[in-house]
Amino acid sequence: MKAVKVGLLGLGTVGGGTATVLKRNAKEIARRAGRGIEIDFIATLEPERAAELGVENIRLTKDAYEVVNDPDIDIVVELIGGYSPAKELVMQALENGKHVVTANKALIAIHGDEIFAKAQEKGLVVAFEPAVAGGIPIIKALREGLSANSVEWLAGIINGTGNFILTEMRDKGRDFDDVLAEAQALGYAEADPTFDVEGIDAAHKLSILSSIAFGIPLQFDKTYTEGISKITQEDVAYAEELGYRIKHLGVAKRTDKGIEQRVHPTLIPERRLIANVDGVMNAVLVKGDAVGATLYYGAGAGDEATASAVIADIVDVTRALTTDPENRVPHLAFQPDALSDTPVVGMDDIETAYYLRMSAKNEAGVLAEVTRVLGQQGISIEAFIQKEPRKGETDVDIILLTHVVNEGNMNSALEQIAALDVINGEATRIRVESLS
Amino acid sequence: MKAVKVGLLGLGTVGGGTATVLKRNAKEIARRAGRGIEIDFIATLEPERAAELGVENIRLTKDAYEVVNDPDIDIVVELIGGYSPAKELVMQALENGKHVVTANKALIAIHGDEIFAKAQEKGLVVAFEPAVAGGIPIIKALREGLSANSVEWLAGIINGTGNFILTEMRDKGRDFDDVLAEAQALGYAEADPTFDVEGIDAAHKLSILSSIAFGIPLQFDKTYTEGISKITQEDVAYAEELGYRIKHLGVAKRTDKGIEQRVHPTLIPERRLIANVDGVMNAVLVKGDAVGATLYYGAGAGDEATASAVIADIVDVTRALTTDPENRVPHLAFQPDALSDTPVVGMDDIETAYYLRMSAKNEAGVLAEVTRVLGQQGISIEAFIQKEPRKGETDVDIILLTHVVNEGNMNSALEQIAALDVINGEATRIRVESLS
Repeated sequence: MKAVKVGLLGLGTVGGGTATVLKRNAKEIARRAGRGIEIDFIATLEPERAAELGVENIRLTKDAYEVVNDPDIDIVVELIGGYSPAKELVMQALENGKHVVTANKALIAIHGDEIFAKAQEKGLVVAFEPAVAGGIPIIKALREGLSANSVEWLAGIINGTGNFILTEMRDKGRDFDDVLAEAQALGYAEADPTFDVEGIDAAHKLSILSSIAFGIPLQFDKTYTEGISKITQEDVAYAEELGYRIKHLGVAKRTDKGIEQRVHPTLIPERRLIANVDGVMNAVLVKGDAVGATLYYGAGAGDEATASAVIADIVDVTRALTTDPENRVPHLAFQPDALSDTPVVGMDDIETAYYLRMSAKNEAGVLAEVTRVLGQQGISIEAFIQKEPRKGETDVDIILLTHVVNEGNMNSALEQIAALDVINGEATRIRVESLS
Repeated sequence: MKAVKVGLLGLGTVGGGTATVLKRNAKEIARRAGRGIEIDFIATLEPERAAELGVENIRLTKDAYEVVNDPDIDIVVELIGGYSPAKELVMQALENGKHVVTANKALIAIHGDEIFAKAQEKGLVVAFEPAVAGGIPIIKALREGLSANSVEWLAGIINGTGNFILTEMRDKGRDFDDVLAEAQALGYAEADPTFDVEGIDAAHKLSILSSIAFGIPLQFDKTYTEGISKITQEDVAYAEELGYRIKHLGVAKRTDKGIEQRVHPTLIPERRLIANVDGVMNAVLVKGDAVGATLYYGAGAGDEATASAVIADIVDVTRALTTDPENRVPHLAFQPDALSDTPVVGMDDIETAYYLRMSAKNEAGVLAEVTRVLGQQGISIEAFIQKEPRKGETDVDIILLTHVVNEGNMNSALEQIAALDVINGEATRIRVESLS
């Protein structure tokens, strides 16, 4: 059978990894796919990089549209990132009748519905396994492997930089700023780390996972997003003392009110497998009504790990070339005319347990006042730590774990607690998920 | 689109789960598959069970051939288990032009090559995700999700009964026989537990995983199989003291000499994620050259968990109905004419590290004699524990961890150690894998 011709847009980290792995494993991949897969044309602003990578006999251009418009190309692989010109290039590739593979989570999270509609109209596939959790085949697992299930919830560590920072804070007792600086030096975190540490990158990925899990349109704008930059060394240590680990989780959950879709620091019981996913590694825990809990773990970033997902998608698309379009796996797992309008619920309506840390005056009756306020909102306490004042200080730390409660009630309680004379400033609040 | 009609052979645990989940999640599954999936005909020797399960308006028969020969049936789902008549029924279904889904690991491990050849000849699909690790989509992950990779090795906890027994032995300090009896009472273990605790069930599954990972024919007969019935409470405790957990692993590894394919009790460093997979849960760790280490975790058995994989396969086959047969995912991941003849290596040629426990006379110079024998075989020691004699006893336990060595050399060393006057009987030997 004729080899499939791939056009690569971008020869950065993932593009370089894709070229390297496709070359090294060419025979093995062809033994699986039943035909050769060849990179035929690469768009890159640094053509000298092709030589560095040992990429030979492949046409190069600085104009990505040349690749997208080339009649010989069967599949366009978009590895440029960002919204523009990535979106225009993908739309043009589809217009030209080419299948697309992309690693671009931001593009899919924001413009996915429009891109998939165009692909649908043209009878084409847009594959995006590398957009979520790097090399872990989580899109495939959720979309195909668990197709029998009504998904109850999923929870993922889907940003390696954030997980590296939290792991170092716990293992070595280091501070957030200190570890972030190291992550930047190591190349894990960007110069502007906002996307990673403030949870925007994770929210892009979570909105994709949520859509696939529950059969709803992509709704990044309704995803609650809270970063890890306010997590202190004390919180990490207190969590440990209570038998928990703090992880930056993306959580999507089906409830009676709709779909909860939220990214935030989360306490997880230390015995859960996902609580032990450390360093830059990613993992996604999926609870299906039939299968129960399943977990998928691996490298969430990196040149060859992400390339693994890019190439798996190229092989999938290669197989799809001869499939009746109506019988292909739908982009968002559910048929486009069968997506549901179940709403994404606002944060006031979610329910979860909470870790609270507050600084209080070292006086009798403080705890009574705090518990009275919580009790008025129907919030009961599961565990409690009160520390002696540190040397030379008169204030004490009070740490509470609550039972599951409505977040609106918790917000009211926190406002009232902040207004108490015996409490200094506002309480730190971190959500707690049992994941059972 | 017309609903797909499924014929079910067997209405036991997995058959019942399949009927229940297909009914409960019918709408959600159809929203994914793009058409309805209906059980149309069930073969069972206990027709009263259909009523118990709330299965209505479905034809029932006690003769499985009636289902296999029924012209209305598109997909035959074989959930009878065992070799015969399961094999004859599957072959007849293929002869009749029907796609097949099976949960039968023994059938695939032993007769897979013949069954797949027949399917190939007829342009049909035989899907077998439920045959390995229950609801975990590990076949799909390995065959499709990791198709870019040259797999270096995989290691799996793929028998829930064995893992339950080892977990209880560690958590509660119980003995093997005691926990086995409980597992039988709980229904985890069969009345004849040989298949589970002696590793035969795991070896069936491992030979399937190995074939898919490395592109070699199924070779159950060349799989080394060692059970857990000789693991003692002492071994579990000593392993813990050394920072390890004992797990019953299936290991398949690509080496210069060929493919290692072996099931045996194994010490794993306790910090590895897979060392913390407890109870009846299963997990498979796969190391690819591009993606690195990935792990897949979930329930390895149970009615609805296994049904999850059965139904995912039905949905996959439904999509395959309109695919050009040459472009479908090959049964064993690699195209049938592209399987390799890389040999499965004999156990004398494998290389691994070892845990050794021996009972010795409490005399000076014992350790010197043991290390001399090991040294002669080129075996060096990584860690060492010597216990004081227990109250009223004069013998002592010596526990050694070795570096990686050839198993043939270890066998020679063990023979010589057993012949030493200062050593009582034979040493217990458990293999050690770092899984890094």
